[in-house]
Amino acid sequence: MRPVSIHTGAWRYPGAWPDANFNFAAYKHFARTLERGKFDALFLADHMAVLNMPTEALKRSHTVTSFEPLTLLSALSTVTERLGLIATASTTYNEPYHVARKFASLDHISGGRAGWNLVTTANPDAALNFGHDEHMAHGERYKRAREFFDVVTGLWDSWADDAFVRDAGSGVFFDPDRLHVLNHKGPELSVRGPLNIARPVQGWPVVVQAGSSEAGRQIAAETAEAVFSAPSTLADGQRFYADVKGRMDRLGRDRDSLKILPGCFVVVGETLAGAREKRALLDSLVHYDSAVASLSVALGVDASRFDPDGPLPEIPETESSKSGRERAIALARRENLTVRQLAQRLGGYAGLAMVGTPASIADAMEEWLATDACDGFNVMFPYLPGGLEEFVDHVVPELQRRGLFRREYEGATLRENLGLPRPANRFFPPRP
Amino acid sequence: MRPVSIHTGAWRYPGAWPDANFNFAAYKHFARTLERGKFDALFLADHMAVLNMPTEALKRSHTVTSFEPLTLLSALSTVTERLGLIATASTTYNEPYHVARKFASLDHISGGRAGWNLVTTANPDAALNFGHDEHMAHGERYKRAREFFDVVTGLWDSWADDAFVRDAGSGVFFDPDRLHVLNHKGPELSVRGPLNIARPVQGWPVVVQAGSSEAGRQIAAETAEAVFSAPSTLADGQRFYADVKGRMDRLGRDRDSLKILPGCFVVVGETLAGAREKRALLDSLVHYDSAVASLSVALGVDASRFDPDGPLPEIPETESSKSGRERAIALARRENLTVRQLAQRLGGYAGLAMVGTPASIADAMEEWLATDACDGFNVMFPYLPGGLEEFVDHVVPELQRRGLFRREYEGATLRENLGLPRPANRFFPPRP
Repeated sequence: MRPVSIHTGAWRYPGAWPDANFNFAAYKHFARTLERGKFDALFLADHMAVLNMPTEALKRSHTVTSFEPLTLLSALSTVTERLGLIATASTTYNEPYHVARKFASLDHISGGRAGWNLVTTANPDAALNFGHDEHMAHGERYKRAREFFDVVTGLWDSWADDAFVRDAGSGVFFDPDRLHVLNHKGPELSVRGPLNIARPVQGWPVVVQAGSSEAGRQIAAETAEAVFSAPSTLADGQRFYADVKGRMDRLGRDRDSLKILPGCFVVVGETLAGAREKRALLDSLVHYDSAVASLSVALGVDASRFDPDGPLPEIPETESSKSGRERAIALARRENLTVRQLAQRLGGYAGLAMVGTPASIADAMEEWLATDACDGFNVMFPYLPGGLEEFVDHVVPELQRRGLFRREYEGATLRENLGLPRPANRFFPPRP
Repeated sequence: MRPVSIHTGAWRYPGAWPDANFNFAAYKHFARTLERGKFDALFLADHMAVLNMPTEALKRSHTVTSFEPLTLLSALSTVTERLGLIATASTTYNEPYHVARKFASLDHISGGRAGWNLVTTANPDAALNFGHDEHMAHGERYKRAREFFDVVTGLWDSWADDAFVRDAGSGVFFDPDRLHVLNHKGPELSVRGPLNIARPVQGWPVVVQAGSSEAGRQIAAETAEAVFSAPSTLADGQRFYADVKGRMDRLGRDRDSLKILPGCFVVVGETLAGAREKRALLDSLVHYDSAVASLSVALGVDASRFDPDGPLPEIPETESSKSGRERAIALARRENLTVRQLAQRLGGYAGLAMVGTPASIADAMEEWLATDACDGFNVMFPYLPGGLEEFVDHVVPELQRRGLFRREYEGATLRENLGLPRPANRFFPPRP
């Protein structure tokens, strides 16, 4: 959930709220609308630096600045009742004690609705904001992330659920035998503990991940309870799903204990043509200077010398990513796009999209769910507030009618709604 | 503001809410009551570790765990309208980029009501939770703190107030000429910037400090806008006030740009005797095992061998702090306390206290204000919710009647209410 949409032209769309990044009332409206639509959760990505792009593109970006996610979700917890609240926190540029505390605190304040999206931070500029000259290497980042997970969950288990007896008569506030000092000393991290906050309502906030590399898929299979994946096609989705669930089988983990949720950009129209027109209008709002840079990256050639209003010329093979080039060329041919339209599509939002009527979108979602491509979706709205409201008012009822989606929340916590078990405390197993 | 009071026996007081540390509804009631009483702000201290005390004392402490302050204040910002929201954040165990972002975010979410209490963290156990074997030395901590302040305020100034033009026609979201990259490289910290959040509503959240050492008073004179001081007596308060304001004179800073606010524990009764009885009852709820440890520390001798219900015997001089011993002995003689009562007083809350009727408390506050001992108070309530409600319902009206306290908030932001100017942006001075 980005407050102005992930699409870079969305802040210019008719009816958009361009200042939504700093408008708490706007977020409140979005969160309450998601809750009206029975969404599991609102997810906020995070960045440890201003986005790493040239100034000419950056100055057109509505996501250049934003609220800090934990403070924002905490504020939103007071204006919602059932909606889960998931934020990204980097394991590379944070200390596990802080991360454990903040998510535990959000979990307590929200009555068990917190989720932590564990990321290792891809933007190398972040290093420069945290006293490092160079970004930590990929392998190193994942090694730290895996240990970081152990420390954070160990800190969450510092206190038994029944530690706080609060016996006013004897004056004993907690039972010291129900407190565990972690004393973690590992290759990357050294953290004594205990955490200075009671065990979270959910035991642990729901652990989410979004990495798609080999290391990312392995750590997800080992530790995640939800994964935000980014497949471009149904076949991609099925491959990713089979890979991660297969890793879980080999680890002896129950497949249902991890939900795979592809990011999906949904444009709703009364007709298919109407939906496509909305998307075309949205894409047309991406400035050509920014758009052509995206196209050049995808093709591996300087696209600024092409006629913007002509068809895409033949593109020679280059050293750049073959799959990116082929996807771009196929898209231009399939939808008969001009160079400008192709550039604006790639510069706007280039990932998985479902563009159509409530029925056609529900058909597509049903196919993904029925063919082992996902367990749900990380829905992205093309423009706000309109795109969100259209989804909740038209797509959600269609999914409910088909029995594909809840009509009421199953429980009070994010875990209960996702159908995930509450983790046992590793230091204080349930009493027989 | 501690949710169960700073007094260690308060959770056992009749009518107390012992679970208030994890009860958001309780905090909401407290915050709204403070706002009804026109308080400038609610202040939350913070700890980077469980309090450093023996298990036998710790297990009786209601402050052993708590919400994380930033997430809590952010949630409270949505249920209040004018109340300032001040949290502690350590410069020793945090990164300036995170601190700058979080307080900027709280300032935006709350509409300009955030304050940052800059501390260097005194609890040596915190080091062990952040990968260090030893606590950073005092001088080193203050050196880092001073540079940390420069970096955080520099990051807050990353964006001119008018940077975000959001011109949907041209597609320009912000003016790159109104963005400053900090590029800080100092002896302790290296932070590139810019901050990925717009300049705070207040320019900078209000900067608060609480250190009383030589280094603490100097950094306060240089940088703070409010100081939580901890004098025991009026004369102490006057000495501290003269010292810090004198340092400001020498630095060329306007004396009014820093407010000195002594911590003051206020027990309100209908009569003086009634107030004293409340305090005696409260002190009696401190467990003797914990209390006698505090007394032993103060006296520099093992007080557990004294008769708890007898008078304090003669105490020989020792190597321990002379002032602490003399204060304890004088207190016992003055109020004719038994060993148990003295121990419970010291173990409950030993600092500056005003115990009396609304009129006598207003008299005392008036004297402090009129004799250059303070600019206001950091009021601490003996038990909650009763002690807070008694203060708001009886002491506040008495102060208002005397013209010593506001009847309505002066402004919308914490700065406006404290009478502090909005800082100019050092990189984008006001246009002529």
